This record gives sequence, structure tokens and C-alpha cells, in this order.
Amino acid sequence: MVASPSKCRVCKSPAIIDLPRHNAHFCADHFLELCRRQVTKAIERFDMITPDDRVLVAVSGGKDSLAVWDMLVDLGYSADGLYIGLGIGEYSDVSGTYAQAFADERGLRLHTVDLRSEYGYDVPTAARATRRVPCSACGTSKRHLFDRVALEGGYSVLVTGHNLDDEAAVLFGNTLRWDVEYLSRQLPVLPARHGFPKKVKPLVRLTEREMAAWCIVRGIDYQVDECPMAEGNKHLAYKAALNAIEQESPGSKANFYLNFLDNMAPLLAGRSAAATDDLRECTSCGSPTTGEVCAFCRIREKSSAHEPVPVELVTGKGRRRR
Amino acid sequence: MVASPSKCRVCKSPAIIDLPRHNAHFCADHFLELCRRQVTKAIERFDMITPDDRVLVAVSGGKDSLAVWDMLVDLGYSADGLYIGLGIGEYSDVSGTYAQAFADERGLRLHTVDLRSEYGYDVPTAARATRRVPCSACGTSKRHLFDRVALEGGYSVLVTGHNLDDEAAVLFGNTLRWDVEYLSRQLPVLPARHGFPKKVKPLVRLTEREMAAWCIVRGIDYQVDECPMAEGNKHLAYKAALNAIEQESPGSKANFYLNFLDNMAPLLAGRSAAATDDLRECTSCGSPTTGEVCAFCRIREKSSAHEPVPVELVTGKGRRRR
Repeated sequence: MVASPSKCRVCKSPAIIDLPRHNAHFCADHFLELCRRQVTKAIERFDMITPDDRVLVAVSGGKDSLAVWDMLVDLGYSADGLYIGLGIGEYSDVSGTYAQAFADERGLRLHTVDLRSEYGYDVPTAARATRRVPCSACGTSKRHLFDRVALEGGYSVLVTGHNLDDEAAVLFGNTLRWDVEYLSRQLPVLPARHGFPKKVKPLVRLTEREMAAWCIVRGIDYQVDECPMAEGNKHLAYKAALNAIEQESPGSKANFYLNFLDNMAPLLAGRSAAATDDLRECTSCGSPTTGEVCAFCRIREKSSAHEPVPVELVTGKGRRRR
Repeated sequence: MVASPSKCRVCKSPAIIDLPRHNAHFCADHFLELCRRQVTKAIERFDMITPDDRVLVAVSGGKDSLAVWDMLVDLGYSADGLYIGLGIGEYSDVSGTYAQAFADERGLRLHTVDLRSEYGYDVPTAARATRRVPCSACGTSKRHLFDRVALEGGYSVLVTGHNLDDEAAVLFGNTLRWDVEYLSRQLPVLPARHGFPKKVKPLVRLTEREMAAWCIVRGIDYQVDECPMAEGNKHLAYKAALNAIEQESPGSKANFYLNFLDNMAPLLAGRSAAATDDLRECTSCGSPTTGEVCAFCRIREKSSAHEPVPVELVTGKGRRRR
């Protein structure tokens, strides 16, 4: 956002934000309108949500998930939230506070699941116990619990706050390796199938910066810090590389992601189907899995038997010293 | 190249270069051997050249084209050179001198074509006359003359010095737009077809930096400056973005390009065939073209009628002031 003498493209009143990829400035009201239009366009284009759906929004307490929840309610959808306490020290405590405050102030329903108290572990401990990068244990745990709460709660659609920057960075990573299997699954909608709810990403046409601006304009307080365990995460390098390109040629990032969906995804359709055919039930929790025991139960088993590890020991210098 | 106390991976004598993507250091001899092995691997893997071929190398006077010519002769192939005088001021004069000196010192045959004296224009004038970026007029002119000299001279293979950085940058650009037509044609070998010679890129497994090191070790003097007209060329931004990724994860660039050839190119095979089916002969020069008159003749016609434009007027500040 810039304090500039520029005028809103729509109404000519003073602008609060410039969006180089749209080659325009906007006032607060018309910026919000643009965001709503982009979300509506994504929802319609990819058949994400209908007015009859019961929606569950995965809420982290960050800008994207709070913004998408706000937008969906604003657009008239019936949407509850789900917050998962990951036990990442103060970062998680603060994130949970923002999520709960958002729900309380608006009279919205927020489910919460706490990894430590309900499953006997947290993400720092899982990272250490599984000897893998924290984002791996965290992602597996979240996906499992999102699916479970959505299905048990009778929700027809699970919404996540992945924005254009997130999706473009993941696409870039998969493209750098030309991982055709992963590329074929990188869609903004995954249909429901046995043991999995329908999953959708309504923010794929909006950027990180636009979501921060949405929250500021709408008066939403959110966790502004990056997760301390994401340090060294390759996605941050991919985002930086794409941002350098975007800086030179505004609109490149959106073209990269949206042209993939238009031009390449259809050529890859069906290539990942085989991998989902031989799913069976986890002998421990009943979730769909390709093995005997699902990835979540394997993490839980190892991690809950491990002495709790404070977050400081698996981040930054602590991690490198390991 | 680094002055380091590291040892050559092969013979343990003092190393002259570290190659992070191979996670190793090399002495001069074993570095040259590695380069020869990579070129041989590319030639064999993609059926680029046989010992019976008569090879024409497109030589710019820069490191890549002189290195590939040197390597091919070194490996026993029969290879002549072709230098095109593009008329880009002092840059072209110096480049031509390096190309000629390289040929003379080794008793190799170098064909030369001078755009201004033989076709009545040069690249700066063409850029102005066609009102397009210089790289566009330059590329079209070079491709046309490479094809013509190769066919008229009875050469069976045309070699260009495109290296891994070049190909990865072009691939990145095509991927950022998901231009499926261009992606389907991005191969290290284009087979001969009516009016076009076979074209191959033996350096696709070697980097810019490795080619500079090859020239230094082999005592080859080359034009070190970037073309003054390439300023603002998007490929430089693509290279910078890929270099940032490579810095974080050595080997990413080679994986990006080589995995494309392995995993994605086969899925796109045949998608560009349609565009080449309706070629006819240029009414002016007889070259294959999709229109009435080929792109080269259109540039030549416009540019040779235009007053000569000195290079300074279409580069840097001169270009922006236009």
C-alpha cells in the first residue's frame, strides 16, 4: 500500500493501493470489490462452492485464512472455521488467539483441535522424532485433521487459504523437477472421494500482498510472523525468484499459474488417477492410506512416545547445531 | 574458478575449479575431461552428430561457440565455422576478430557473412526500421543465414553454442507462459526437413561458467562483453532467477532442463507438427515460409531502405530516449 496522490481507477477518489499487475490504483471500497470479484470468479470457474454447501475453513490465524473466511461469510456462504493447535511455541499461541478473536467478534463457529492435548505430540517434537523437516510432519498432521473434522462434522467442502503466491511457488517447485505426478494434481479443486472431503482454494486469483491489504482494510488482526519452523523452506526461495520476475514484468506470476491451469493441466488430466485406486483403511484410525498404517498415525506413534521438544531446539541456530 | 586448497576429485592434485552441482573440485585436465564427457553424452543421447557428418558451427566470437567448435574438432569431428557480421558497432568488430583469430590459429575454415555489405542493413538499423526489440531482428537474420549457408555449403548438421543456462532460461520463459507450442519444440536436436538443416546443441549439459573456464584453460580468447543490445532482454532476468535457485540448491538448473527432456517433452511430442505442414517458398528468396515473403526478406526490405542507425542510438539511454 502506498500513500500516493493516485486516484482509484473506478471512482477517482484517492487510492490506497496500487496493483501493478492490473496496471491500476484502487480506493478501499473498490479494492475490496476487486477481491470479491476475483474470489467469485475462482469459485464459479472451478465449481468450488454452491450456496447449499456447508463449508469448513482451515484457519491458521494468518492473513490468508482469516481473509478467505471473512470473504466467504461476506458473500453469504455458510462457513465455520477449524483451528489446529500445532504447539509451535509462542507462534502457535498467538495464532490461536487471532483465530478465536476473529470468530468471537463475528459470532462465527470455530472448531479447535490441539495436537498436544488430543494426540500427545506437537510439531517441534514430531520434527525431531521423525527426523524430517518440520513442514513435512506439520503438513501431514494438518491434512489428516482437516479431512477428519470436515467429514465427521458433515461439511461438504473444505476451504484452505492458499493464495496465488503459494500456488505459484508450489507449481514452480514441481516444475523445476518436472514432477508430472505432482503437476497433474496441482488443481484449485480436488473432488471428494472415499475418505476425503472436497477441497478448494478460493484465493488462487489473489496475492499475498492483496490478502494483507484486505485484512488491513477490513480491520482484521492476524499473525504477521512467518512460522519460525519454515526457515530454509524451499518455497520461500521459489517465492523470491517469482517475485523478482514479477517485479520486472507485472502479471507474470498470475499468468504462470493460470496459464498452467488453462494450457497444461488438461494435458496431464488423469495421470494421477492410478495412485488413488489402491487405497485401504488405516488399521489404527480407519483413514484412507496406501500402507498398513496411515502417515498421520505413524507420526503420532513416534512423536507421542518422544520426550517433548521445545520449538527453540528445532529452529534457526538450534536446528543447525543439532 | 577459485584459488582454493581443494584437490581434484579424480587425481587429488590441486584443483582449479569447484563445481557445486557435481559436489566436487577438478584440476585443469580432469575438468576438460568432464566437459568432453558431457558433450559426448549429449551427442550420443540425442543422436546429434556422427563421424560422417559435415558440421557447420555458428560462431559468434563468444565463449560458448568457440568452445563448442574447439571441442568438436578436439573430438575428431569435421567442423567448419560461420561468423555473421551483425553490424553492432565495436561489439561486432571485436567479436569477428576473435572468431577469425581462433580459426586462423588452428587452420580451421571460417565462412563469414556481413549483413551490411551483403544484405544492405545491420541489426541496429533493423531494430529501428522494424520497431521491434533488437534480439528479434537479430535472431531472425541469424537463423535464416545459418540455414542458408549450411544448406548451400552441403553441411549435414548445424551446431549452435547454446549452453545449459541458455536453454534453461528459454525453458523458464516458455514455462512462465505455459506456451505449449514453444515447449513442444524446445529440444536439443531439430531434425532436418525441407529447407532446414539438422540443428543441434551439444552444450546443453554444460553451463556458461564451465564454458568460460574451458576457454581460459584452453587459452581461447573470446568476446567477454554481453551484446550491448541485449539490455532489458527478459532472458537475463530468467537467468538471474534460476541462478538464485541454483545457489540455494546446486543442480536445480540441470534438473530443470534435463527432467523436462525426460519427463515432459515426450508428453508434448507431435504437438508442433501442424504448424510446419503448410510451409511454402518465399517469393523473394525461396526459403520456407508460412507467408508470401519470409521474415528475413521482410526485415531486409524494410531495413535496407532505412538510413543506417548507429548502435548507440538503439541501446541503453539512447533507446529509452527514443
